Amino acid sequence: MDIQVIGVRDLPLIRKGDDLPALICEKVAFEDGDILAVASSVYSKAKGFTRDLSAITPGADAVRIAAKTKEDPRFVQAVLDSSTDILLEHPFILSELPSGHIGVRAGVDHSNVEDGRIIILPPDPMAAAAEVRDAIRRITGKNVRVIVTDTCGRAFRRGQTGIAIGWAGMTAIDDYRGDTDLFGHVLEITEEAVVDEVAAFANFVMGESHQGVPAVVFRNCRAWNGHDNVYFMPEEDIIRTALKGNKKD
Amino acid sequence: MDIQVIGVRDLPLIRKGDDLPALICEKVAFEDGDILAVASSVYSKAKGFTRDLSAITPGADAVRIAAKTKEDPRFVQAVLDSSTDILLEHPFILSELPSGHIGVRAGVDHSNVEDGRIIILPPDPMAAAAEVRDAIRRITGKNVRVIVTDTCGRAFRRGQTGIAIGWAGMTAIDDYRGDTDLFGHVLEITEEAVVDEVAAFANFVMGESHQGVPAVVFRNCRAWNGHDNVYFMPEEDIIRTALKGNKKD
Ligand SMILES: Nc1nc2c(ncn2[C@@H]2O[C@H](COP(=O)(O)OP(=O)(O)O)[C@@H](O)[C@H]2O)c(=O)[nH]1
Ligand SMILES: Nc1nc2c(ncn2[C@@H]2O[C@H](COP(=O)(O)OP(=O)(O)O)[C@@H](O)[C@H]2O)c(=O)[nH]1
Ligand SMILES: [Mn+2]
Ligand SMILES: [Mn+2]
Ligand SMILES: [Mn+2]
Ligand SMILES: [Mn+2]
Repeated sequence: MDIQVIGVRDLPLIRKGDDLPALICEKVAFEDGDILAVASSVYSKAKGFTRDLSAITPGADAVRIAAKTKEDPRFVQAVLDSSTDILLEHPFILSELPSGHIGVRAGVDHSNVEDGRIIILPPDPMAAAAEVRDAIRRITGKNVRVIVTDTCGRAFRRGQTGIAIGWAGMTAIDDYRGDTDLFGHVLEITEEAVVDEVAAFANFVMGESHQGVPAVVFRNCRAWNGHDNVYFMPEEDIIRTALKGNKKD
Repeated sequence: MDIQVIGVRDLPLIRKGDDLPALICEKVAFEDGDILAVASSVYSKAKGFTRDLSAITPGADAVRIAAKTKEDPRFVQAVLDSSTDILLEHPFILSELPSGHIGVRAGVDHSNVEDGRIIILPPDPMAAAAEVRDAIRRITGKNVRVIVTDTCGRAFRRGQTGIAIGWAGMTAIDDYRGDTDLFGHVLEITEEAVVDEVAAFANFVMGESHQGVPAVVFRNCRAWNGHDNVYFMPEEDIIRTALKGNKKD
């Protein structure tokens, strides 16, 4: 059966305290097995994971880095507050978050929120995905899978794409180890990061500006088996090691 | 209108000389505006972009690198032959191709081809996409958009995803510069690599092993405007610069 991809339109501007799963369930007739992708920005706004710039006092590191990146030191402080390790300070901050995700400016957003406020990523994005999944089951009785997405840069290629920062009801990786190709050979490529492949297309459907499509439903996608081990250990991450070696500038 | 995503099934094993666009048109009733994603592996097999390992004589560099990566020196020679610049030799070869694409083992594949043969990426993947697009227009009269995909690793996250190595009838990047968010602010995220977002989901539908789905059709996807400038200049690529600095091991 063909896959259907449905952008969820006509949702309101999301504010702190909104019941996001309930609002989405008003617009979508979910079926068992659907994959719902939700933009982290709206999840964070609903849960109050936003900050007032005026309430942030930048520390010495934030002031020092902001002078290099030409950003607001209070914004830089928020990025540092969201980060557990800084891989690069300049020309942009690249850092690791508590979840293991590595992203530019720790995923802190100025866009799609009121002036003077910023959106931070959900501190526990796996729990966020599980919470949305459980809420949809409670409201509709349907067993859906959920991905929380963010728009993110990547190495070696210009432009941002959507990635998964949290997921529930599926593993991040489809593990093909032991599987064979059309000629019966054992495969070379064995770990497909399917959760990011779905998040990427969801992000295309969402867009980046005033489209107002913060959620996307995928119907008739296969299930897969694998694991959630999507983040490298620091010492097995070759590119991180290279960046750390070159961090001082 | 919802987006439909259709895996193209029941294609034969593709061999040199096969008319791949004609074979696909037998299975798909194309509509104007469809996006067709084609796996680079089948395009390369149809065009004869494969090599016999037994016909390759490894040079000194290939022998030296193969001792580190524990690969067949003839395979390593094929990777070097496909590459214009080597960013990393070990634990895997990461290199730049003539198109500007940076990939592990230069995208050279052992899988889904006969024993002792390897598949190399199309040397001109943009021309490959244009050729498939023109052929479909000739056969069906329909104006479709085409992406040539490959499965590829990425930095900072385990697992491979699909990316676009060639495209025709669209730009790689949806350029939002000057666009505004839901609150009227100018956007921070301005260049969305939509061609890779579509390729990623196509790769999910294709799978990696014996699924036999080398092509995927997307129906009802919006059009976008932007540019094709997806590859950085070497000197603007921070991660490449860091890797080059640490290349010697
Ligand atoms: N209806 C609605 N759409 C929103 C809201 N906030 C963001 N969006 C839309 O959600 C999509 C993704 O927004 P974005 O800010 O890029 O989220 P991110 O990728 O998670 O950082 C875009 O289509 C936005 O227009 C909101 O409060 N309400
Ligand atoms: N019908 C058919 N499917 C193929 C052929 N070669 C590869 N595939 C399928 O195409 C998809 C992608 O194959 P893969 O080798 O991963 O291609 P790559 O990602 O471009 O390197 C998988 O579903 C394969 O089973 C072929 O010759 N015929
Ligand atoms: Mn974001
Ligand atoms: Mn976004
Ligand atoms: Mn490949
Ligand atoms: Mn593949």
